Amino acid sequence: MISIKIPDLSIQQALIQKINNKTKPLQSLGRLEDLALQIGTVQQSLSPQLSQAHILVFAADHGIAREGVSAYPPEVTAQMVLNFVQGGAAINVLTRQHGIALKVVDAGVNFTFAPDTPVYPAKIDMGTKSYLQQTAMTEEQLEACMSEGAKIVREVHQTGCNVIGFGEMGIGNTSSASLLMHTLLRLPLEECVGRGTGLNDAQYQQKLSILQQAVNKHSLTDSDPRKALQTFGGYEIAMICGGMLQAASLGILVLVDGFIASSAYLCAWKLQAAISHYAIFCHQSDEQGHRLLLEKLGASPLLQLDMRLGEGTGCATAYPLLQSAVAFLNEMASFESAGVSKS
Amino acid sequence: MISIKIPDLSIQQALIQKINNKTKPLQSLGRLEDLALQIGTVQQSLSPQLSQAHILVFAADHGIAREGVSAYPPEVTAQMVLNFVQGGAAINVLTRQHGIALKVVDAGVNFTFAPDTPVYPAKIDMGTKSYLQQTAMTEEQLEACMSEGAKIVREVHQTGCNVIGFGEMGIGNTSSASLLMHTLLRLPLEECVGRGTGLNDAQYQQKLSILQQAVNKHSLTDSDPRKALQTFGGYEIAMICGGMLQAASLGILVLVDGFIASSAYLCAWKLQAAISHYAIFCHQSDEQGHRLLLEKLGASPLLQLDMRLGEGTGCATAYPLLQSAVAFLNEMASFESAGVSKS
Repeated sequence: MISIKIPDLSIQQALIQKINNKTKPLQSLGRLEDLALQIGTVQQSLSPQLSQAHILVFAADHGIAREGVSAYPPEVTAQMVLNFVQGGAAINVLTRQHGIALKVVDAGVNFTFAPDTPVYPAKIDMGTKSYLQQTAMTEEQLEACMSEGAKIVREVHQTGCNVIGFGEMGIGNTSSASLLMHTLLRLPLEECVGRGTGLNDAQYQQKLSILQQAVNKHSLTDSDPRKALQTFGGYEIAMICGGMLQAASLGILVLVDGFIASSAYLCAWKLQAAISHYAIFCHQSDEQGHRLLLEKLGASPLLQLDMRLGEGTGCATAYPLLQSAVAFLNEMASFESAGVSKS
Repeated sequence: MISIKIPDLSIQQALIQKINNKTKPLQSLGRLEDLALQIGTVQQSLSPQLSQAHILVFAADHGIAREGVSAYPPEVTAQMVLNFVQGGAAINVLTRQHGIALKVVDAGVNFTFAPDTPVYPAKIDMGTKSYLQQTAMTEEQLEACMSEGAKIVREVHQTGCNVIGFGEMGIGNTSSASLLMHTLLRLPLEECVGRGTGLNDAQYQQKLSILQQAVNKHSLTDSDPRKALQTFGGYEIAMICGGMLQAASLGILVLVDGFIASSAYLCAWKLQAAISHYAIFCHQSDEQGHRLLLEKLGASPLLQLDMRLGEGTGCATAYPLLQSAVAFLNEMASFESAGVSKS
């Protein structure tokens, strides 16, 4: 079992002093100051640096996607992976803009990619089973997901990376996220279920009814994150959970994207609450349930831009705020050095 | 009088079609889609570009600052201008990060800068008069401010610039912003007055009482923005107003920063409501009154990061979102080109 250390908080006094001596009114950089404090604490440095930022997009198919829960056909998962590879998706544009390295992981897409496709191979199977009939995956598959996620993070860490955004692609995966949230937080199902990538009213009612059937079938009575992941998870969600835990244990900043990535974080947090010290919540998505989930996690997302497409796009969009936080801490003048009077 | 054209909206249908054909669920890029639509409309282009982005920081001193409305001494205005020039302020760090050109304008700082100081010379006087005794400036000074602001924008436009953020520095200028808001929107004074750069309760009550005296002295009964600016304005605020009007009339995107810049925008908008088509509200500051002012302007700011230091820092922090909007519109694949199935 990976273990996550709470960072030594004794550095915070010196960090706060450095922040307060910058030529600006006290606390006037708001959330950027919070970020600088957190990043400095994680890195145990008064001059933290962001290095080799990565976004990992984990893609997988879901048995439930053939039961009528999504506006898109399941084939779109593989089509979007090929779009990532060709550089045409939103996450490609945003990572190029911000100089973030992008890796696409085949966690279990129902498609056999040509051997030269630049996709990280971690395929568990050709998609999960439908949890209307059985658990989405076996216990062995769950463990394989967790350890594959951790392995990829260790490899990225070897490049000198100290900040990772976790994104996903998988038609049907908002259903998994809703069920994980319902199971692990004991919230009414209808508060956890949203419209995914664009369901109308009738489709939404159908999704809710299907997910209620899934809940009834398995009637999980405890809130064990492993059991919940095995039952309702996607391979990509379990892999993100394992990856996040590994990242925090290595002292890497964990950027949490939208609803699905947040549900993976919820599982990781249930396993190791100390992960919260390393987590930065990037964006509150337009998906119903995400606001509530973030509230339950005590998280204040940096951005609220009504986005809802996953892929790590929230992480990429928020990344310049992390850069700003580090830059002001390292580059701004102090009152003394600039000869500015204090209040 | 500068005139501002409403952009031809007939291009929006084609823009929306292009946005909706990108490989993402409909509207799933949220506010970035709104930005792409607005920027494309202003530029009358399906492939808009941001070019030679500038932030102009207008600095000036305020007679009212010697009456006890600010936590900082008035000397800080000049000290901060020198800090800008030396590259040590928050706005320096943020504009360097985002590749934005920064120009500092001496609109009326109570300090004689050495001739080789890289400050744009537009000094109207050594600071405004205290509006407890008289109007802050003469009618001629107001006109000089408006035309200096316009002139600087025309010069920047000559470099190929099509996006300008308007920032400010001036100890005491939240008082001007509050009085402009109170006068032009007929809102109760106490809803317009905040704690500026950090007043305690007693200081806040003192500020409110001083501003009430100013209101009583002048008892402006109409909502003429010129008269309000002349009475309560700062030179920097009036110059921003003139600059924003000129920018919009040239088809330049106008980035609105925090509370003070928003009060300048309020004056511009009262003069020429068509400016709203060109305006992008970057950040809702932590300053009381700013939320209310934005609401009255029908503005939805892109960011809410609890910042409150002006200088154009909200514009700089929001700028990568504009770049993202333009980038996704120009670079993302369409469903057809990527071979992705639509819902």
